[in-house]
Amino acid sequence: MTTLGELGEDAVVDLIAGRLISPPSLGENLGHPDDARDMLPRGPRIIYSMDAYRVRSLMLPWRTWRDIGWMALTGAVSDIVSKGGLPSVAMVGLGLSRDASIEEVEELATGLREAGEHYGVRITGGDTNEGGDPWIAVSVIGFTTCKRPPSRRGAKPGDTVVVTGLYGGMGFVALHGVEKAGELEWVVKASRRTSVRVEVAHVIMSTYRFIHASMDVSDGLGYTLQHISALSGHGIALKKPPLHPPELDEYCRGETSCIWRHVLAGGEEYGVVLVVDGGGLSTVVKELEYYGVPYTVVGEVVESPPGIYIDGVKASPPRWDQFKGW
Amino acid sequence: MTTLGELGEDAVVDLIAGRLISPPSLGENLGHPDDARDMLPRGPRIIYSMDAYRVRSLMLPWRTWRDIGWMALTGAVSDIVSKGGLPSVAMVGLGLSRDASIEEVEELATGLREAGEHYGVRITGGDTNEGGDPWIAVSVIGFTTCKRPPSRRGAKPGDTVVVTGLYGGMGFVALHGVEKAGELEWVVKASRRTSVRVEVAHVIMSTYRFIHASMDVSDGLGYTLQHISALSGHGIALKKPPLHPPELDEYCRGETSCIWRHVLAGGEEYGVVLVVDGGGLSTVVKELEYYGVPYTVVGEVVESPPGIYIDGVKASPPRWDQFKGW
Repeated sequence: MTTLGELGEDAVVDLIAGRLISPPSLGENLGHPDDARDMLPRGPRIIYSMDAYRVRSLMLPWRTWRDIGWMALTGAVSDIVSKGGLPSVAMVGLGLSRDASIEEVEELATGLREAGEHYGVRITGGDTNEGGDPWIAVSVIGFTTCKRPPSRRGAKPGDTVVVTGLYGGMGFVALHGVEKAGELEWVVKASRRTSVRVEVAHVIMSTYRFIHASMDVSDGLGYTLQHISALSGHGIALKKPPLHPPELDEYCRGETSCIWRHVLAGGEEYGVVLVVDGGGLSTVVKELEYYGVPYTVVGEVVESPPGIYIDGVKASPPRWDQFKGW
Repeated sequence: MTTLGELGEDAVVDLIAGRLISPPSLGENLGHPDDARDMLPRGPRIIYSMDAYRVRSLMLPWRTWRDIGWMALTGAVSDIVSKGGLPSVAMVGLGLSRDASIEEVEELATGLREAGEHYGVRITGGDTNEGGDPWIAVSVIGFTTCKRPPSRRGAKPGDTVVVTGLYGGMGFVALHGVEKAGELEWVVKASRRTSVRVEVAHVIMSTYRFIHASMDVSDGLGYTLQHISALSGHGIALKKPPLHPPELDEYCRGETSCIWRHVLAGGEEYGVVLVVDGGGLSTVVKELEYYGVPYTVVGEVVESPPGIYIDGVKASPPRWDQFKGW
């Protein structure tokens, strides 16, 4: 096994760059090893973000370094898509241990590349450093035709809450821990790699006038709903759980509170919560169906104080805290 | 002293965001706490980059957390400027120890903000994580009117090599270590905070047709010159050392080889090496003087094999390796 310390910086960078970095595209002039890249705007408005991770926090026992690469790019792409942006390019900063093996780094690069190909995002650069506690930072630039990309605030009483994606697998991990979760095939399958439906960007671009708030689900559906609710100053009444694996129904033996508990906890599902003006719901639903994006109408915005309510009772789903823990 | 672990993620993010994050500008819709931001293109071509650092590698004994913040943004801005881009917005990813104090994080944010104000770069977002070995990742988006932003390759025999900025202080640190360097006021002054001359972007925008290669000096002037030389396939003959503090002349007692040794070693000076077509030299120089950017014509590109030559002898300046060390 060769380590990065034995290989040295130039060879490590070349190894990663060779697997990861896209050459200049038509009309572009800069490519690796230039630090900065150039591109022509591909839409009237730029949407951009940075997402960063401690590798340890992404590392479920059943995830490989390749899965970690996939998940890191997925999370960053999700931020863009939920604002109506079509992601175009990404840059990746890495902090790697000098004791890491070449194989691990190759796997990581492969996972990042797979995700890039899946989402149509070119990885165009980045920066590699030594890091005693490994980390990944991903910045993404995308474009949108939205004149007003939807923010997290703006939910109004009477609005409908639509949730895309599947929930329950990561919630099971959060509620029961990795040991118990690792024994269940459906949980492992649902949580190894999640993915973003990039088509949601198209849905938002064509219906943004009706979308009062939008946020991706990275820290748990419950937290996302609470956050939108708090920023908007209104409550959200939940009526129907979002899509979830049939095994969760079995596990919960049809008990609705059990299902809610699991779908609201978790994180990294990377669906999108869309808060839709009543008058525009049919248009938004039509677009979601046109693109084959799985979705559920989970509830509505109500006049109550901020919070999420199930059968009139306020729910308090757990959320991971970077500095405090659960 | 309150630590980040006691404060918790939301409070840490609010603390950093309150000092750091610019609100939406005219024509923009997204702001904190949205992860992604929107902006309208401010030039025909986008120049973007990501730069990442292990905090430990930025931490000279005489640098505070505020200096670290300044240096992290400076390095990222430098990548954009050397490609003819005017930096516009930046996002900052942080990995912070849960044992870090609020004061340290406030200082870091203050330094980032000071640099942002100095360079006219708005800091618009980022991401905060726990990190056992603290790190900073900075992504910057800028714009340029250059049809062909200059890359690192393309130096041709007969071209003139122009170097902006001051050298020698960081070289002294690299060659003699922090203990000896810390005793000399001029070295401390030259290395505590270096800065980029953003005006170099304007120089490149108006003269890019004459600039065959351009690269910023982040890993030492010697390494930068060697790298351009290697990518271009030609040697660089050095004739006149770049600008340096008068104290280096005193230290070297006028011995030229000593001065070369110090100005070629180092890093983080963030000047720019411009390889200029002979026919365009007077135009480039006129622009540099118009903007008051300090510069030196240090040598020329020659028919020799790649490498840098002083009085016909190949020089081998040291360079820091992220994974191997010096």
